[in-house]
Parts: sequence; C-alpha cells; structure tokens
Amino acid sequence: MSYPADHDARRGPSRRRFLLGGAAAGWGAAIALGADAIASPAKPADTTGSGPAEPTQDTAGLRGSAVVPFYGAHQAGVSVSPQAHSTYLALDLHEGVDAEALGRLMRLLTSDAERLTQGRGALADMEPELAQNPSRLTITFGFGPGLLERAGAASPAWLAPLPAFGIDALRAEWSDGDLLIEVASDDPVTIAHATRSLLKSARSFATQRWQQHGFRHAYGSRPQGSTMRNLFGQVDGTVNLVPGTEDFADLVWIADGPLAGGTSLVIRRIAMDMETWDDLAREGREESVGRTLETGAPLTGVAEHDEPDFEAVGPLGFPVIAAEAHIRRARSADTSQRFYRRGYNYDETPGPGETSRSGLIFTTYQADPVAQFVPVQQRLDELDLLNQWTTPIGSAVFAIPPGCREGGYIGETLF
Amino acid sequence: MSYPADHDARRGPSRRRFLLGGAAAGWGAAIALGADAIASPAKPADTTGSGPAEPTQDTAGLRGSAVVPFYGAHQAGVSVSPQAHSTYLALDLHEGVDAEALGRLMRLLTSDAERLTQGRGALADMEPELAQNPSRLTITFGFGPGLLERAGAASPAWLAPLPAFGIDALRAEWSDGDLLIEVASDDPVTIAHATRSLLKSARSFATQRWQQHGFRHAYGSRPQGSTMRNLFGQVDGTVNLVPGTEDFADLVWIADGPLAGGTSLVIRRIAMDMETWDDLAREGREESVGRTLETGAPLTGVAEHDEPDFEAVGPLGFPVIAAEAHIRRARSADTSQRFYRRGYNYDETPGPGETSRSGLIFTTYQADPVAQFVPVQQRLDELDLLNQWTTPIGSAVFAIPPGCREGGYIGETLF
Ligand code: HEM
Ligand code: HEM
Repeated sequence: MSYPADHDARRGPSRRRFLLGGAAAGWGAAIALGADAIASPAKPADTTGSGPAEPTQDTAGLRGSAVVPFYGAHQAGVSVSPQAHSTYLALDLHEGVDAEALGRLMRLLTSDAERLTQGRGALADMEPELAQNPSRLTITFGFGPGLLERAGAASPAWLAPLPAFGIDALRAEWSDGDLLIEVASDDPVTIAHATRSLLKSARSFATQRWQQHGFRHAYGSRPQGSTMRNLFGQVDGTVNLVPGTEDFADLVWIADGPLAGGTSLVIRRIAMDMETWDDLAREGREESVGRTLETGAPLTGVAEHDEPDFEAVGPLGFPVIAAEAHIRRARSADTSQRFYRRGYNYDETPGPGETSRSGLIFTTYQADPVAQFVPVQQRLDELDLLNQWTTPIGSAVFAIPPGCREGGYIGETLF
Repeated sequence: MSYPADHDARRGPSRRRFLLGGAAAGWGAAIALGADAIASPAKPADTTGSGPAEPTQDTAGLRGSAVVPFYGAHQAGVSVSPQAHSTYLALDLHEGVDAEALGRLMRLLTSDAERLTQGRGALADMEPELAQNPSRLTITFGFGPGLLERAGAASPAWLAPLPAFGIDALRAEWSDGDLLIEVASDDPVTIAHATRSLLKSARSFATQRWQQHGFRHAYGSRPQGSTMRNLFGQVDGTVNLVPGTEDFADLVWIADGPLAGGTSLVIRRIAMDMETWDDLAREGREESVGRTLETGAPLTGVAEHDEPDFEAVGPLGFPVIAAEAHIRRARSADTSQRFYRRGYNYDETPGPGETSRSGLIFTTYQADPVAQFVPVQQRLDELDLLNQWTTPIGSAVFAIPPGCREGGYIGETLF
C-alpha cells in the first residue's frame, strides 16, 4: 500500500468539481437510481382498511423488514401495536403558506411516508439504504387549529388547546403546533433517517416547533402483547381500548364529516419526579395507583387483567383501592368517556445534581377529546394521588385525518 | 363503583403518614424484598475470563432475559457484540473525595453493576421490575486522570487529553471527566433505569459532567453480525479488530501493571453535517471514503470484506481509491497502529431551521492510545476527505480497569 506523493497536487479544482460539482446530478442520480434501484423494497401486503394495520410476514426472520401497510381507511400509526420508539414533531407553518401550498406539502409528505414505511427511500433520498429496515415504521400526520385555518377548512369545535388545569405547568416549547408528524418504528436508526427526510421535505413550508422522543421496551425483549412499564416501574396501559374491537372503532374513529375515518390526538408531556417518588415506600406507590408494582394487578386481585373491586374494604374499613387512587379517579361511570392511550417514556439528559429528567409522552386518541378526554382529565386534576409526582409540562391537540388510497394524500378530504 | 363522599376528610395526616412516612421503611423493604424477592433474576453463566463475554442462552426466546456475565478478567462491555443502545456518562468527583472514598464508591458501583447486569435491581432499587430485562446490559467503568490523581495511584503516561488537532472544535460540555460509566443494552427502558440507579449511588461522590446517548440498529432488525450503518448511510466498522482474536487480545488488552486486563477508551463526539453532505453526489460520497454505499465494498471490489486494492488505477490514471479517501488515510502500514472501534450514532433534536443534529459517538479501545490511536488521528487531521463534513466537538480519554472476581470491585488493582 502506498500513498501517492502527489496527493496535495490532486486536491485541485478538477477533483473538487468532481466531488462537489456533482451535487445537482447527485440528486438526479439518487432519484433515478437511489431510492428504487438501490434500496430493496420490502413487500407491502394488502390492507383491508378495517381493523388495525398489522405488519406483513417477516420472511427472513428479521424484524427490520417488517412493513406496516400505508394505505387504508385510517392512518396506520394509530392502531398498530406500539413500536419501541416514537418521535413526535410539531411544525409551525411559514407565513404565506395557503391552502394550495398545504396541498403540495401534504402530497409530498404523503409520498415520503408511503415510500419510507414500505422500505424505500423518500423521492430525493440521499441515504436510501437507511430506509431499508422499516421495522414497522409508521408515519402519522395531525393537523392543529392553525393549519386548518390556513386551509380555509371547517375546524371541529374540539380542535383547540385543552382547558387549563390546576396541575398544569405548560411550556410553549412543548405545546401546540400547526402540523404534527409522528415517526414510530422498532429501529432507532430508521427513525433518525425518516425524521430528517420528512423535515427536509417540509422545510420550505414549515419550521420545527418541538420534537419529543419516546421509547418503550425493545421489540422482542418481553412477551408479545405484554403491557409496557413506565419509568416509575408501573405496568401502564392495562385498561385500555383494544384496536380491532368494536369499542375501539366506536370511540376512536370519527364517524362522519371530512374527518370520517380519522381521530384526534391529545399529546401531553408529563414530567415524573423520580426524586420525590423515591421517598415513597412500595406500599404507598401501589396505593397511589391502586395496582401492584409486580404484576399490575388491582390491589383487590391477583392478575393484571383482574377486574378491580372498587367496593372492597380492608380490615380498618378503608377501601382497598383508595378514594384518591389514580385508577379509581380515572375510570368513568360514563363509558363514553374513554380513549385509547398510547404513551411512551421519555428520558432526557439530567441537569447537574439531578439523576433523571424523565416522564411520559402521554398520548390519547379519541373521536372527540372534549367529550371523552377532558372530563377524565378534569377529575384527575381535582384529585389524584399521582399528581404529587407528575406535572404536565406540554400539551397539544391535533386532528388526525383519515388514511388515503394509492394516488390520494393525507388531508385530501379537508382542502 | 362509587367514590366515597369523605374523600377529602381522608386526606388527613394519618393517610399521608402511611403513604409518605413509610419512606424509611420503604427503603428497608425494597432492600429486603425488592431487589431479590421481587425481581426474578436471570441466570448468569460462568465466564472464563478469556475471549469476549457473550450472553447466556435465552431460554424463553425473549431477548429481554439475555444476560452478559459480569465477572471476568476484562470488563464485559468492551468485547461484547455492540448492543443497540449505549449511554455514556462522565462524572466529576466532588472536592474531598479521596482514595478511601473512591474505594467505597467503586465497591458500591460494582455491586450495582453486577446486580443490574444480571437482571436484579441495585441494592436500594426502588423499581426492581425495571431491572428484569437486562437485554445484554453491560456497565463499564473508566477512570480519567483526575480520578487516579485523587486515588494517589500511578497514572499511565497516555492518560491525558489527546493532543489538539486542527479539525477539532471541542466543547468542554462534551469533553474530559473523572469517572466514565458506559451503560449499554438492547432495551432503552433498561438503560434509563440503570443509568439513574448508578447516578443515585454516585451522587454523594460525584456530579454528572456530560451524558451522551448513542444507538445502532435494533437487535434483530438486521442479520446478526452485520456491520452497522452510520447516519451518512455508510457501512461503518468493516475493517476492525475482532473480539476473541489474537490481534484483539494483543492490541486491546493491557498486558501488565495495575491495569493488566484493562484497556483505554478514546471517546470523540464527531458532528456530521448532514446539510452539506446532502450537496454531495453519490459518487463523491463513495469516493470520500473509498467504499460503496450499497454494500460497503471497497471501490476496487464487490463484497464488503474484499481487501481494498490501494494500487489500482482507473482509466484516467488516478487511483481508484483516492489519495485523500478516508480508508486509505486511516490505514497504517504499521500494524501496531490499530484499535477497536465501537461507535454509536447520535441524533439530537435539531434547532430551528436545522433538519438534524447528528453524528457519531466515535469510540476506540486500545492498550495505548498515544502509540496506537494518535498517529492515525494525526494523519486524518492532515488529510481526509471526510473532514469536510465531520467535526470533532468532544474528546476524552479514560483508563478502563480490568474486570474483577466475585467479592472484588472494579478499580481494586489501583487504590
Ligand atoms: C405521568 C402520568 C401518568 C401515569 C404515570 C399514569 C399511570 C397509570 C397506571 C400505572 C395505570 C394503571 C394501569 C392501566 O390500566 O394502565 C393507569 C391507568 C389509567 N390512566 Fe393513567 N397515568 C398517568 C396519567 C394519566 C392521565 C393524564 C390520564 C387521563 C387524563 C390517565 C388516564 C388513565 C386511565 C383512563 C386509566 C385506566 C383506568 C381504569 O382502570 O379504568 N392517566 N395510569
Ligand atoms: C464521523 C467520523 C467518521 C466517519 C463517518 C467514519 C466512517 C468510516 C467508514 C465508512 C469507514 C469504512 C468502513 C470500515 O472499515 O469501517 C471507516 C473506516 C475506518 N475509519 Fe473511520 N470514520 C470516522 C472517523 C474516524 C476517526 C476519527 C478515525 C480514527 C482516528 C477513524 C478510523 C478508521 C479506520 C482505522 C478505518 C478502517 C480503515 C481500513 O480499512 O484499514 N475513522 N470509517
């Protein structure tokens, strides 16, 4: 092996032109060769458009090639069983972006999302190889009130910031936004690439407002279908609507109007104070929720999915599940006040002297957040033992438009 | 279901005492019951102390229970095949922490690390359930020059910041530190919990200086043993020392002295400018490294592991692998100038107007960084096409002490 002595001479303009001057051609080449020819696309399955979108069979036994169908009556990311990682982006539209521009933006983003989720690079993808392992990638779009206003579209009455709650300590940096993009996958490399691709496509239309990164247990590290644990160590998500059931369909999907087949997303960033939580004994921790830490069983039962007995009293005559326990307060007698929770843990670098900066990216999906979600949040605001250790620091509401067919685009029913 | 009308009355002191006053007892209970009785420990295998530490068989077919043996001649996290996620913490010792205190600190951290990696909570673990899925968790300790000085221990000559390089734009917030802890696992929830447990144990001795979070492809998303891709889309890690080989043993493990069985870690945070990289055509990208993007094969070959032909010239008489190509510049004629690279991607939330804030947590392990690493870095500093798009923004060197036996602790050979 030798280093040619003339290497300095060879740094002249001609070589530099070859390396850098190819920029325009490079984009062309990536479009022509890159995205399709270079990345080997995973095979998408038919989607019926009803029931939850589930990934196609994983032929090679590798999770990387698992693909969730993109087209369908609903956006696939709502009902797919939660991936290990999820990044939420909120963008604010540039001034002057009108209905026509919004149509262009959403056509572009829909194309990116369809290609990326199916294991191909976005149209102008410069790193199509990073799109080859979708690992159940889903990309889900949501519209804030500002976007629908720009579009001149009718906005549902519920599409507005939630009412203020006493427990809130909201920060603008984690709240609101015109356009939401959720990028979720079992592979963090896939998310990094997809997120950047989408931001590149959006950047002449919008600026990032916030970004939140969430995680659950790695795919395959625990029995499939098992409920996640949050960073308090609690089994979190036991009592929930189940995608594919009638309850889910009735309570999550919007039935009519331009958003039919869509839903709404409430996203709240809730800080969990691990420091003060540490001062609480195991019994107190279990009492605060009304469930055990070991299995997530109600304090009146033995297995996670046992029905809690809210009437049971202990030897001293107190209810076994306390009056202020989170699960008692969160459950409504009115069964229409339910929603689908699909939260993710977050854990940011702690500041000096801190040992964590953790919490929950608490998300819920429901046809009408004002009718279904707000009453529950109000009740918890009044009284919930968990409030001592949790603080909402961000909040936003988005309309999640329905899915689309091939040739269509997300949002087409609105503008 | 009913809400007792007296719920406000019941918020009095007695209940509050029960919930919160149990703190002291709670710790006791967690120690007695929590960590051992509550978490079901995964079974560790014997470790021979030679060759790379590999996880025990995964009986349930779940990745979560995979355990890497803790005890051995070497710290296990150096040679274990890289996990999907890695968090690096650097701590600065409090004033007054002396050799005796360091011994206590390292005994405590060793105990935590042993327990956590084997799927049990740390001794005072309040969330032992979050330790139940080690997912190949390893916890690796490194000592900076400041720590060895406090210990009054002899410090190897190489244990100092690297010489300054022309390409460097180092920031204190990503550089140096007294104590390094690397927490690596295939499960991000496990990492969040272990990191916090270790910071809690360390906090009366030291303050966090920096924290870096890195990721690779999810476990099982690509064929096992396949080389990772970085966020430029490059196959990164093809030519590398291989754990378990003689070369690795000779070049990575320190042969004698108090660090025998240990090694050194160079950790450089290298920003990758995705924006200007975007302006570069695919051909230029491949030329900058000397390998193809599709397979990582050298430009003179067809398969990833083909030996590059540095003498080959193209039709115009130029070398096929350019004189300034990264792989030509990074390869030494002197085969002692090699090291083990074990880098991770990072991807932080971009600022307004940016589409990414990405790079590589570039790490290398070698017996002597001054003899093995510095000459290569110096050569790349002089000339390397990749320098146009990459900027080192953090740098640190740590001594990685050897492993220990049951009853011993990491660092015992030094203080
Ligand atoms: C960081 C904040 C929170 C934590 C740590 C938390 C944790 C939990 C846990 C451990 C459970 C029991 C297991 C389960 O059924 O999932 C639960 C149940 C529940 N939570 Fe939360 N939660 C939080 C915030 C909220 C918020 C803000 C709401 C709604 C406004 C909410 C609504 C519910 C509901 C509806 C249930 C099921 C109750 C039932 O059994 O019917 N949670 N939560
Ligand atoms: C962000 C910065 C960097 C990137 C993106 C990068 C990327 C790459 C890539 C794609 C390869 C070819 C595949 C392989 O063999 O792994 C490579 C090889 C290599 N790199 Fe880097 N690298 C970076 C920084 C460095 C630094 C700072 C050093 C050492 C000071 C280094 C040392 C090496 C070595 C020794 C090889 C193997 C060369 C051979 O074929 O013998 N790299 N790097």
